[in-house]
Amino acid sequence: MKNYAKVNVTEEARAELHDKLALTGAEVSINALPAGTSVPFIHSHKQNEEIYAVLSGEGYAEIDGEIIGLEAGDWLRVSPAAKRRFAASSEKAVKYICIQVKEGSLEGYTATDAII
Amino acid sequence: MKNYAKVNVTEEARAELHDKLALTGAEVSINALPAGTSVPFIHSHKQNEEIYAVLSGEGYAEIDGEIIGLEAGDWLRVSPAAKRRFAASSEKAVKYICIQVKEGSLEGYTATDAII
Repeated sequence: MKNYAKVNVTEEARAELHDKLALTGAEVSINALPAGTSVPFIHSHKQNEEIYAVLSGEGYAEIDGEIIGLEAGDWLRVSPAAKRRFAASSEKAVKYICIQVKEGSLEGYTATDAII
Repeated sequence: MKNYAKVNVTEEARAELHDKLALTGAEVSINALPAGTSVPFIHSHKQNEEIYAVLSGEGYAEIDGEIIGLEAGDWLRVSPAAKRRFAASSEKAVKYICIQVKEGSLEGYTATDAII
Protein backbone atom coordinates (compact mmCIF):
# COMPACT_ATOMS: atom_id res chain seq x y z
CA MET A 1 0.00 0.00 0.00
CA LYS A 2 1.27 3.44 -0.90
CA ASN A 3 2.31 5.90 1.77
CA TYR A 4 0.24 8.67 0.22
CA ALA A 5 -3.13 9.57 -1.28
CA LYS A 6 -3.96 12.47 -3.61
CA VAL A 7 -7.13 14.25 -4.67
CA ASN A 8 -7.83 17.41 -6.67
CA VAL A 9 -10.42 19.85 -5.34
CA THR A 10 -11.24 22.84 -7.45
CA GLU A 11 -14.84 23.23 -8.45
CA GLU A 12 -16.93 21.84 -5.63
CA ALA A 13 -18.88 24.11 -3.28
CA ARG A 14 -17.82 21.97 -0.31
CA ALA A 15 -15.39 19.08 -0.19
CA GLU A 16 -14.54 16.94 2.85
CA LEU A 17 -11.19 15.19 2.66
CA HIS A 18 -11.18 12.77 5.64
CA ASP A 19 -12.56 9.86 3.67
CA LYS A 20 -11.14 10.86 0.28
CA LEU A 21 -7.58 10.88 1.62
CA ALA A 22 -7.98 8.38 4.50
CA LEU A 23 -6.88 11.03 6.99
CA THR A 24 -6.25 9.86 10.58
CA GLY A 25 -5.18 13.06 12.35
CA ALA A 26 -7.52 15.68 10.91
CA GLU A 27 -10.63 16.42 8.94
CA VAL A 28 -10.16 19.09 6.30
CA SER A 29 -12.96 20.76 4.40
CA ILE A 30 -12.85 23.27 1.56
CA ASN A 31 -15.82 25.61 1.65
CA ALA A 32 -17.34 28.33 -0.50
CA LEU A 33 -20.05 30.77 0.51
CA PRO A 34 -21.70 32.99 -2.14
CA ALA A 35 -21.87 36.74 -1.49
CA GLY A 36 -24.45 37.64 1.13
CA THR A 37 -24.74 34.14 2.59
CA SER A 38 -23.57 32.51 5.81
CA VAL A 39 -23.35 29.09 7.36
CA PRO A 40 -26.95 28.69 8.66
CA PHE A 41 -26.03 27.84 12.26
CA ILE A 42 -23.64 28.75 15.07
CA HIS A 43 -21.60 25.81 16.34
CA SER A 44 -18.93 24.85 18.84
CA HIS A 45 -16.98 21.61 19.34
CA LYS A 46 -16.54 18.95 22.02
CA GLN A 47 -12.84 18.18 21.48
CA ASN A 48 -11.66 19.73 18.25
CA GLU A 49 -9.59 22.84 17.66
CA GLU A 50 -10.40 24.34 14.28
CA ILE A 51 -7.96 26.16 12.01
CA TYR A 52 -9.44 28.29 9.24
CA ALA A 53 -7.66 29.76 6.22
CA VAL A 54 -9.24 32.21 3.81
CA LEU A 55 -8.21 31.33 0.25
CA SER A 56 -10.02 34.08 -1.63
CA GLY A 57 -12.80 36.63 -1.39
CA GLU A 58 -14.04 38.43 1.66
CA GLY A 59 -16.18 37.61 4.63
CA TYR A 60 -16.35 37.57 8.38
CA ALA A 61 -16.43 35.22 11.33
CA GLU A 62 -18.71 35.70 14.31
CA ILE A 63 -16.91 34.19 17.32
CA ASP A 64 -18.52 34.44 20.77
CA GLY A 65 -20.53 37.38 19.45
CA GLU A 66 -17.52 39.29 18.10
CA ILE A 67 -17.35 40.09 14.35
CA ILE A 68 -13.94 39.47 12.78
CA GLY A 69 -13.38 40.64 9.20
CA LEU A 70 -11.71 38.12 6.91
CA GLU A 71 -9.73 38.42 3.69
CA ALA A 72 -7.42 36.19 1.65
CA GLY A 73 -4.36 35.10 3.63
CA ASP A 74 -6.09 35.22 7.02
CA TRP A 75 -5.59 32.24 9.32
CA LEU A 76 -7.56 31.64 12.52
CA ARG A 77 -7.27 29.22 15.42
CA VAL A 78 -10.64 28.66 17.11
CA SER A 79 -10.82 26.82 20.45
CA PRO A 80 -13.42 24.04 20.86
CA ALA A 81 -15.74 26.01 23.15
CA ALA A 82 -15.99 29.08 20.91
CA LYS A 83 -19.43 29.69 19.40
CA ARG A 84 -18.66 30.38 15.73
CA ARG A 85 -20.30 31.12 12.41
CA PHE A 86 -18.77 32.05 9.06
CA ALA A 87 -20.23 34.34 6.42
CA ALA A 88 -19.35 35.88 3.08
CA SER A 89 -19.42 39.65 2.75
CA SER A 90 -22.52 41.20 1.19
CA GLU A 91 -20.69 41.81 -2.10
CA LYS A 92 -18.07 39.07 -2.42
CA ALA A 93 -18.04 35.30 -2.07
CA VAL A 94 -15.51 33.73 0.30
CA LYS A 95 -13.58 30.48 -0.13
CA TYR A 96 -11.96 28.97 2.95
CA ILE A 97 -10.39 25.85 4.40
CA CYS A 98 -11.41 24.41 7.77
CA ILE A 99 -9.04 21.99 9.54
CA GLN A 100 -10.36 20.03 12.54
CA VAL A 101 -7.80 18.51 14.90
CA LYS A 102 -8.08 17.18 18.44
CA GLU A 103 -7.09 19.95 20.86
CA GLY A 104 -3.78 19.16 22.59
CA SER A 105 -2.99 16.18 20.34
CA LEU A 106 0.21 17.44 18.73
CA GLU A 107 3.42 16.22 20.37
CA GLY A 108 6.64 16.85 18.41
CA TYR A 109 6.66 18.68 15.09
CA THR A 110 9.09 19.85 12.44
CA ALA A 111 12.59 19.56 13.97
CA THR A 112 11.46 17.28 16.82
CA ASP A 113 9.40 14.94 14.63
CA ALA A 114 11.22 14.92 11.29
CA ILE A 115 13.83 12.36 10.27
CA ILE A 116 16.29 13.68 7.68
CA MET B 1 -8.71 35.14 27.19
CA LYS B 2 -10.25 34.98 23.75
CA ASN B 3 -11.21 31.69 22.18
CA TYR B 4 -9.44 32.54 18.93
CA ALA B 5 -6.27 33.94 17.40
CA LYS B 6 -5.80 35.45 13.93
CA VAL B 7 -2.83 36.17 11.68
CA ASN B 8 -2.50 37.27 8.05
CA VAL B 9 0.04 35.50 5.86
CA THR B 10 0.50 36.75 2.35
CA GLU B 11 4.00 37.83 1.42
CA GLU B 12 6.38 35.61 3.34
CA ALA B 13 8.39 32.84 1.63
CA ARG B 14 7.68 30.52 4.57
CA ALA B 15 5.45 31.05 7.57
CA GLU B 16 4.97 28.66 10.49
CA LEU B 17 1.73 29.12 12.41
CA HIS B 18 2.11 26.91 15.51
CA ASP B 19 3.50 29.68 17.69
CA LYS B 20 1.76 32.58 15.93
CA LEU B 21 -1.68 31.06 16.55
CA ALA B 22 -0.90 29.00 19.69
CA LEU B 23 -1.97 25.82 17.90
CA THR B 24 -2.23 22.66 20.02
CA GLY B 25 -3.34 20.02 17.52
CA ALA B 26 -1.29 20.83 14.42
CA GLU B 27 1.61 22.71 12.95
CA VAL B 28 0.76 24.50 9.71
CA SER B 29 3.30 26.05 7.37
CA ILE B 30 2.81 28.08 4.22
CA ASN B 31 5.62 27.52 1.76
CA ALA B 32 6.80 28.95 -1.55
CA LEU B 33 9.44 27.47 -3.85
CA PRO B 34 10.72 29.52 -6.81
CA ALA B 35 10.72 27.88 -10.27
CA GLY B 36 13.45 25.28 -10.64
CA THR B 37 14.05 24.84 -6.90
CA SER B 38 13.24 22.14 -4.37
CA VAL B 39 13.37 21.55 -0.65
CA PRO B 40 17.06 20.64 -0.21
CA PHE B 41 16.48 17.35 1.62
CA ILE B 42 14.29 14.26 1.71
CA HIS B 43 12.52 13.72 5.04
CA SER B 44 10.12 11.43 6.83
CA HIS B 45 8.43 11.69 10.24
CA LYS B 46 8.37 9.83 13.53
CA GLN B 47 4.69 10.33 14.43
CA ASN B 48 3.16 12.94 12.17
CA GLU B 49 0.88 12.54 9.18
CA GLU B 50 1.32 15.43 6.77
CA ILE B 51 -1.40 16.97 4.62
CA TYR B 52 -0.28 19.13 1.72
CA ALA B 53 -2.39 21.53 -0.36
CA VAL B 54 -1.15 23.27 -3.48
CA LEU B 55 -2.41 26.85 -3.51
CA SER B 56 -0.92 28.03 -6.80
CA GLY B 57 1.69 27.26 -9.40
CA GLU B 58 3.09 23.93 -10.42
CA GLY B 59 5.51 21.42 -9.00
CA TYR B 60 5.97 17.83 -7.98
CA ALA B 61 6.41 15.65 -4.93
CA GLU B 62 8.89 12.81 -4.78
CA ILE B 63 7.44 10.21 -2.39
CA ASP B 64 9.30 6.94 -1.83
CA GLY B 65 11.02 7.52 -5.16
CA GLU B 66 7.80 8.13 -7.12
CA ILE B 67 7.28 11.47 -8.88
CA ILE B 68 3.79 12.95 -8.43
CA GLY B 69 2.88 16.04 -10.48
CA LEU B 70 1.19 18.82 -8.53
CA GLU B 71 -1.05 21.71 -9.53
CA ALA B 72 -3.38 24.15 -7.73
CA GLY B 73 -6.19 22.36 -5.92
CA ASP B 74 -4.21 19.17 -5.27
CA TRP B 75 -4.36 17.75 -1.75
CA LEU B 76 -2.09 14.97 -0.47
CA ARG B 77 -2.00 12.83 2.65
CA VAL B 78 1.52 11.55 3.36
CA SER B 79 2.08 8.86 6.02
CA PRO B 80 4.86 9.39 8.59
CA ALA B 81 7.23 6.77 7.13
CA ALA B 82 7.12 8.10 3.56
CA LYS B 83 10.37 9.61 2.30
CA ARG B 84 9.28 12.87 0.71
CA ARG B 85 10.61 15.96 -1.01
CA PHE B 86 8.76 18.84 -2.69
CA ALA B 87 9.87 20.84 -5.71
CA ALA B 88 8.62 23.58 -8.02
CA SER B 89 8.46 22.87 -11.74
CA SER B 90 11.32 24.12 -13.87
CA GLU B 91 9.19 27.02 -15.19
CA LYS B 92 6.73 27.91 -12.43
CA ALA B 93 6.96 28.60 -8.72
CA VAL B 94 4.73 26.60 -6.39
CA LYS B 95 2.96 27.77 -3.22
CA TYR B 96 1.69 25.13 -0.82
CA ILE B 97 0.43 24.50 2.69
CA CYS B 98 1.80 21.71 4.89
CA ILE B 99 -0.27 20.53 7.88
CA GLN B 100 1.40 18.26 10.46
CA VAL B 101 -0.87 16.26 12.76
CA LYS B 102 -0.23 13.24 14.95
CA GLU B 103 -1.19 10.10 13.02
CA GLY B 104 -4.28 8.45 14.50
CA SER B 105 -5.06 11.37 16.83
CA LEU B 106 -8.46 12.38 15.46
CA GLU B 107 -11.45 10.95 17.32
CA GLY B 108 -14.84 12.46 16.44
CA TYR B 109 -15.24 15.14 13.79
CA THR B 110 -17.95 17.24 12.17
CA ALA B 111 -21.30 15.62 13.13
CA THR B 112 -19.79 13.58 15.99
CA ASP B 113 -17.79 16.45 17.49
CA ALA B 114 -19.87 19.55 16.76
CA ILE B 115 -22.40 21.07 19.16
CA ILE B 116 -25.12 23.04 17.40
